[in-house]
Amino acid sequence: MTCGTIHGVGLGPGAADLMSVRADRLVRGTRHIAYFRKAGRRGHARTIVSDMLRADAVEYAMDYPVTTEIPVDHPDYNDRLAAFYARCTAHLAALARAGEDVVVLCEGDPFFYGSFMHLHARLRAQVPVAVVPAITGMSGAWTASGQPITWGDDVLTIATATLPEAELARRIRDTDALVVMKIGRHLAKLRRAVAAAGRTGEAWLVEYAAMPNERVRPLAEADDTAPYFAILLIHGRGRRP
Amino acid sequence: MTCGTIHGVGLGPGAADLMSVRADRLVRGTRHIAYFRKAGRRGHARTIVSDMLRADAVEYAMDYPVTTEIPVDHPDYNDRLAAFYARCTAHLAALARAGEDVVVLCEGDPFFYGSFMHLHARLRAQVPVAVVPAITGMSGAWTASGQPITWGDDVLTIATATLPEAELARRIRDTDALVVMKIGRHLAKLRRAVAAAGRTGEAWLVEYAAMPNERVRPLAEADDTAPYFAILLIHGRGRRP
Repeated sequence: MTCGTIHGVGLGPGAADLMSVRADRLVRGTRHIAYFRKAGRRGHARTIVSDMLRADAVEYAMDYPVTTEIPVDHPDYNDRLAAFYARCTAHLAALARAGEDVVVLCEGDPFFYGSFMHLHARLRAQVPVAVVPAITGMSGAWTASGQPITWGDDVLTIATATLPEAELARRIRDTDALVVMKIGRHLAKLRRAVAAAGRTGEAWLVEYAAMPNERVRPLAEADDTAPYFAILLIHGRGRRP
Repeated sequence: MTCGTIHGVGLGPGAADLMSVRADRLVRGTRHIAYFRKAGRRGHARTIVSDMLRADAVEYAMDYPVTTEIPVDHPDYNDRLAAFYARCTAHLAALARAGEDVVVLCEGDPFFYGSFMHLHARLRAQVPVAVVPAITGMSGAWTASGQPITWGDDVLTIATATLPEAELARRIRDTDALVVMKIGRHLAKLRRAVAAAGRTGEAWLVEYAAMPNERVRPLAEADDTAPYFAILLIHGRGRRP
């Protein structure tokens, strides 16, 4: 029997027609589909493809065992996530060994701060794995902002709001263009870091880019809390003939 | 008469099935198509869509007036490019005012170091302009490398090889993950900067990502020259349960 392939398929920023033609074909054609989700939720990735699945599709929902109730630097956090990824890997590898192809849905681009990376690292030595790149959430955000992110020789720094405040401020000061991901609970700290870098007037907060409730606002006018799908941007101002 | 729309449509890294479903539909449906190219060449963007155009499509090729024969910091470079972008803008705006929609093909993502940005900045005050984001060339490159670019809290720096050598070295030293674009004639300088930062052993050169002649090599084993479609990567090594 031929071994099946595990396809890590990027869905892009959120609109179904922003996934690639290759991703669209794989999602519509697959019998086995898997996706991560917060326990008790339908899952954002699953929602994007809701009108695309085969009637006989077999679904494998991978419910994260922890989110924010354990700090990421606590040993239990690491242990519980590692055990979870090992379980998911075993299930997917067994399907592939039984000759089945599986599409694993990935929000954004699979190799850019994605959860699929943790399966990929475990699966690749065992069964065939293929990755379909996608439009990143940040591309969706700068497109929503209506302004290019980088011009000419601009340096673009991409950081996560989980960094310490002083380090964030240093990074924000020392770049032409900026993207900050993973904002969530860190918005207040991020605001202070942007202010410390003297760049509040240049900063935009983009929420739900490429989704029906997309919203783009100057950081100065944003609320005190940000949803999971929020990205901060500072646009570059490089050479433009 | 209703004014037409100028669509800046990202094509992604190079494979036709890596453009988005939205881009695919726009390219296949449009009567008017425009694209940049080096004078005397067919143009890479035009090549990607060669099997997709309507039989009655009207093409507008925008031939760059200069490439490397004038240094970018010379006043003539700026003047000639500005005049060129003004001519392209006038042509496209006239089509839109005559009620025609136009698809402008963009390699990679339109708002990420793209040429379309120079038209967008001039057109947006005159006629309706829409932008379709795309998979960046760098996503194509890190997917080709078979390894994720960022994990956990990794900082990713994106720089162009056109920067001065010392500045490049400083940026390469001060980041977790790295992408360098616009390598071309600057490969020797970039190699020295990577070595000065002590990171030669981590660096990969990806040529023609997502194209038939895709090639991924450690920087240490790469040739002395790089094609236009070359991207340097250093992968992040952040938190991974």
